Amino acid sequence: MDITATLGRFVARSRWDDIPAAVRHEAKRTLLNFFGTALGGCRDEAIEHLVAVLAPLSGPAQASLIGRRERFDMLSAAFVNGAAANVHDFDDTHLPTVIHPAAPVVPAVLALSERQSTSGEEFLQALILGLEVECRLGNAVTPYHYAKGWHITSTCGVVGAAAAAAKLLRLDDATTVTALGLAANQACGLVEGLGTMAKSVSVGAAPRNGLFAALLAKQGLTCSPQMLEGARGFAHVMGDKPDFDAITAQLGERWESARNTYKPYPCGIVLHPVIEAFLALRKAHGIEAASIEKIRVTGHPLLRQRTDRPHPSTGREAQVSLKHTAGACFLLGRAGLAEYTDAVAADPAVRAVGDKVEIVDDESMAVEGAVVTVRTTRGEEFSSETKQAVGSFAKPMTDEQLEAKARDLARAGCPAANMTRLIQGVWTLEKQGDAAALLSAAVP
Amino acid sequence: MDITATLGRFVARSRWDDIPAAVRHEAKRTLLNFFGTALGGCRDEAIEHLVAVLAPLSGPAQASLIGRRERFDMLSAAFVNGAAANVHDFDDTHLPTVIHPAAPVVPAVLALSERQSTSGEEFLQALILGLEVECRLGNAVTPYHYAKGWHITSTCGVVGAAAAAAKLLRLDDATTVTALGLAANQACGLVEGLGTMAKSVSVGAAPRNGLFAALLAKQGLTCSPQMLEGARGFAHVMGDKPDFDAITAQLGERWESARNTYKPYPCGIVLHPVIEAFLALRKAHGIEAASIEKIRVTGHPLLRQRTDRPHPSTGREAQVSLKHTAGACFLLGRAGLAEYTDAVAADPAVRAVGDKVEIVDDESMAVEGAVVTVRTTRGEEFSSETKQAVGSFAKPMTDEQLEAKARDLARAGCPAANMTRLIQGVWTLEKQGDAAALLSAAVP
Repeated sequence: MDITATLGRFVARSRWDDIPAAVRHEAKRTLLNFFGTALGGCRDEAIEHLVAVLAPLSGPAQASLIGRRERFDMLSAAFVNGAAANVHDFDDTHLPTVIHPAAPVVPAVLALSERQSTSGEEFLQALILGLEVECRLGNAVTPYHYAKGWHITSTCGVVGAAAAAAKLLRLDDATTVTALGLAANQACGLVEGLGTMAKSVSVGAAPRNGLFAALLAKQGLTCSPQMLEGARGFAHVMGDKPDFDAITAQLGERWESARNTYKPYPCGIVLHPVIEAFLALRKAHGIEAASIEKIRVTGHPLLRQRTDRPHPSTGREAQVSLKHTAGACFLLGRAGLAEYTDAVAADPAVRAVGDKVEIVDDESMAVEGAVVTVRTTRGEEFSSETKQAVGSFAKPMTDEQLEAKARDLARAGCPAANMTRLIQGVWTLEKQGDAAALLSAAVP
Repeated sequence: MDITATLGRFVARSRWDDIPAAVRHEAKRTLLNFFGTALGGCRDEAIEHLVAVLAPLSGPAQASLIGRRERFDMLSAAFVNGAAANVHDFDDTHLPTVIHPAAPVVPAVLALSERQSTSGEEFLQALILGLEVECRLGNAVTPYHYAKGWHITSTCGVVGAAAAAAKLLRLDDATTVTALGLAANQACGLVEGLGTMAKSVSVGAAPRNGLFAALLAKQGLTCSPQMLEGARGFAHVMGDKPDFDAITAQLGERWESARNTYKPYPCGIVLHPVIEAFLALRKAHGIEAASIEKIRVTGHPLLRQRTDRPHPSTGREAQVSLKHTAGACFLLGRAGLAEYTDAVAADPAVRAVGDKVEIVDDESMAVEGAVVTVRTTRGEEFSSETKQAVGSFAKPMTDEQLEAKARDLARAGCPAANMTRLIQGVWTLEKQGDAAALLSAAVP
């Protein structure tokens, strides 16, 4: 069972022509969403702290920080960009593992593409292979890994980042295996840290350490060739009865990277069907917050378990509060980044609407659905049901919706970004000679 | 059970006057041994690779690389110095956990002491507290943690490094707790990587990430306050039924940092009593390799299990080969770094002596002892028994032996180091105004 060797060989030998068109297109959607969330996150308080600490320690100005004027060395830039893309939990989700695939992988590819001439094809190919390694490794240790307490985006992400970087560095089979191994040796991140800025440290570490692993392998550092499958390697140490087939079966035929999903709203995914119903009711019947007497939300019991948090005290907590979300939707008519701030969470008017919400459990319902019924002070009653929210695997966001999301995020975090050029650049990436040109549209 | 909070408060509030003289002196012994092994390791191939990769990425020349002319940013320097000190496995050992305590902690203290004026007292105090946190955390998760596959020096070391850095940065109780938590969130390192250069990546990461954690905490990054004891925190995720009392009991009264040991020989510790017997026989009876017919080594069965490796192919493998060690001792009269190289491992004359060794199991013997009997071609038979090798906790290396070891290592890795000044500086450290002055004696 040479799992690491099989993965390494696959990465080193995979050719652009082997990758189906649908997989290539999904990678571009992943990339566009990455740029959007990184632009939206680049001025978050946690990112400002990271930049402030790294600025006096960073090496030469080799690599761009998305949405910012600073330039850092490759490793430090990869750290900040990974953290920024994930900071609002608004980035992509590989649902089988709940990995956020892009944040650990894209920054490693971006940083290298600024150092060495990289075509759009090479960029996308490296990105796809990195995402593939990351998600397959996640599949092999799911569900134990996350349930035990490993922040799977960070731990599997670092290995994906190394795979992507190894491809761009054109490492051979054995050296790619070393890169994957040196990355696994740096895998870290605890679920205990989620909900605090600690998350940004392990997510940022993933692209930095993955890129570092590939550079070290290229330089000649050695590593056990079985770091993923060995008795004291990643999967046995951080997994329980790992499913190695999930890593190696149908490599190059079944593409996990194409099973990525994107959120239309920056909040807990179980809230998405509820938001759709809220906004649909508001629009269809012109319901104003002041006219609401009662809001009844019926959903799978998981909905109440995860989101029954009245009066959240921070924007971060509001992201998993159904009652806050009701206030935002009916009072402000939106559920975007601007509606999940500390200020909005503390707004008495928003809280007053939230207080009118009643959550009803219904085990017969799917997690992907919700029914909302609003009773007005005039005695009217309106209902709306969401069967399957946009952003699920069955009902993905359209390309146009992803564009709009990215523009919206850029407006919040970096209004000076040239989104028209960036979006156009992403959609036509495989035809471009210099992938790093994308970045000039993603900075002020 | 506020474990992280208790540790953080202890670190933030501990005063120099609270630390007993014996603990202070042991820290100086630890520091001297650290400088020795870092000087001996600073030109190892793995370290050359790390330096080559980091040089074009490093920030300003803020911090010294021990034994080298390059200067790197604080984080990169801490990485290289930690890796160098541990690269030959010749550094200190906390026997209850098999942690190598100094390599992760000292480099964080050194790097900060070059940035901010640090007295010898402050330096030693931070070092002692870092070692204490590291070893206590190790005690809490031993033996499961290492047996499962975590490289405990790296995983616990990063938390110790953060504690030391937090103390030097004068962080308050709560901010120190954050520093410890952000360090735990970066804990990594797999046993699968040992025996390859991968080890140097996780050991180097420990001081870098621990220092980074403290800097981030100071800057305002937040973290769950229960990263060590929380349900999805370090001890539960990476330990099995963790013993939290081992972390908090008798804090400031019982000092784990003072239970450190130092190796006189750069090889597996079970070989040490055998080496003593080999060298004693050679000296007492003038035994030459050519006159040996047979060497019988009687020891605890663990001795054979760990070290019965005829004809090792590398110096690294030779470090755990009894037969190679016999060749080195009888042919070359020494078992120092120079006797554990690839070249000596491949020397037919050394191998020929090794081929004369017979290993006999004796369950009644202690692991700390060995009996060696040599039969010569003239029919003589000589025996020597070691009850307890030098370097064990019961029979520690003397200060003079540590000085000689450090000088020997410096001769191998950095002959230009001023060892007289360095040794004097370590022994009188608490009286000095500027701890960083030590470093000027430890570079060419």
